[in-house]
Amino acid sequence: MSKRIAGPEIERLIQLLAKVPGLGPRSARRAALHLIKKKELLLAPLSAALAEALEKVRVCSVCGNVDTADPCTICTDPRREQATLIVVEDVADLWALERAGAMNVRYHVLGGTLSPLDGIGPDDLNIAGLVARVAEGGVAEIVLAVNATVEGQTTAHYIIDRLAGLEVKVTRLAHGVPVGGELDYLDEGTLAAALKSRTAF
Amino acid sequence: MSKRIAGPEIERLIQLLAKVPGLGPRSARRAALHLIKKKELLLAPLSAALAEALEKVRVCSVCGNVDTADPCTICTDPRREQATLIVVEDVADLWALERAGAMNVRYHVLGGTLSPLDGIGPDDLNIAGLVARVAEGGVAEIVLAVNATVEGQTTAHYIIDRLAGLEVKVTRLAHGVPVGGELDYLDEGTLAAALKSRTAF
Repeated sequence: MSKRIAGPEIERLIQLLAKVPGLGPRSARRAALHLIKKKELLLAPLSAALAEALEKVRVCSVCGNVDTADPCTICTDPRREQATLIVVEDVADLWALERAGAMNVRYHVLGGTLSPLDGIGPDDLNIAGLVARVAEGGVAEIVLAVNATVEGQTTAHYIIDRLAGLEVKVTRLAHGVPVGGELDYLDEGTLAAALKSRTAF
Repeated sequence: MSKRIAGPEIERLIQLLAKVPGLGPRSARRAALHLIKKKELLLAPLSAALAEALEKVRVCSVCGNVDTADPCTICTDPRREQATLIVVEDVADLWALERAGAMNVRYHVLGGTLSPLDGIGPDDLNIAGLVARVAEGGVAEIVLAVNATVEGQTTAHYIIDRLAGLEVKVTRLAHGVPVGGELDYLDEGTLAAALKSRTAF
């Protein structure tokens, strides 16, 4: 647009909001207008929350989670079982597993998966940190909760190789039919895996 | 979730992001994580942009637009034709018309439409301000660019009544086939209006 219709501050806000995942250029404009209209109710608290996050949030030096404390709330929680670590690719996966709430244990965030095509090698992931945590002792089981993708599985195999010689049990998530899933819509690989791992009724 | 997995600052950021139009609870989590990961590239500038918007953005006392200047950039632009005012419901409509860039004129933002069911009467809209601008003189035409909804049209008729006796031409947007639109998918009312307002080839 050649004509100026508003101060550069509003244009800049829209451009930045458009970079937030889930918002595009169009919805960023709507979001900016909404924020400006709800100045006291939303813009002010959101501005404060972002400033606080910017100031306080850091990456946990133990597990790679993000939190305002380092070590993070999960690593320092004394009620969590200490002998099991769940290895995830990303903090988002950690949050998803916590919402599932099935295991009261600690985590290790890799920060991605091995991907030679994207130039991501073992040194770009927090694998050395995982080996060090296991070598320190006190960890009896590692659950490799990486995605069921080629990259995820490659990373899992690499981690197993790196842990060779250390006294630790390595497990992975079960494959099967998602809860609420319809067989008709599932791929053959999943169905074959669900049949192979069938359990007694 | 009963277990604490992160500091309250992150939870609060997610809750606030979920109130931004276009983001829900799920995408707010993704957005928060993305912001935290892109601390320098996105979180810091967005935090600054929101703080600046909070401090500087205000409603234009002349037309109701939002801007960092009052009167706004559009109202004070000397290159705009002064004799025509486009009346819109919302600032979003003003922005949309500016993007179309078809008329280089000024605006008047009503701030909504008459809606007795929602308890929105004439005093809740910036109609008195419009009448005052016209009464001051210098406005030859008013384009009622309200939505083609029942509320929009009711508001248009009410404004025409209020302007009765003032020397001003009142026009409205043309009805017709949207550019790129397929006849097959259009409602009968639009097709009838497009036929009625047909123009020479």
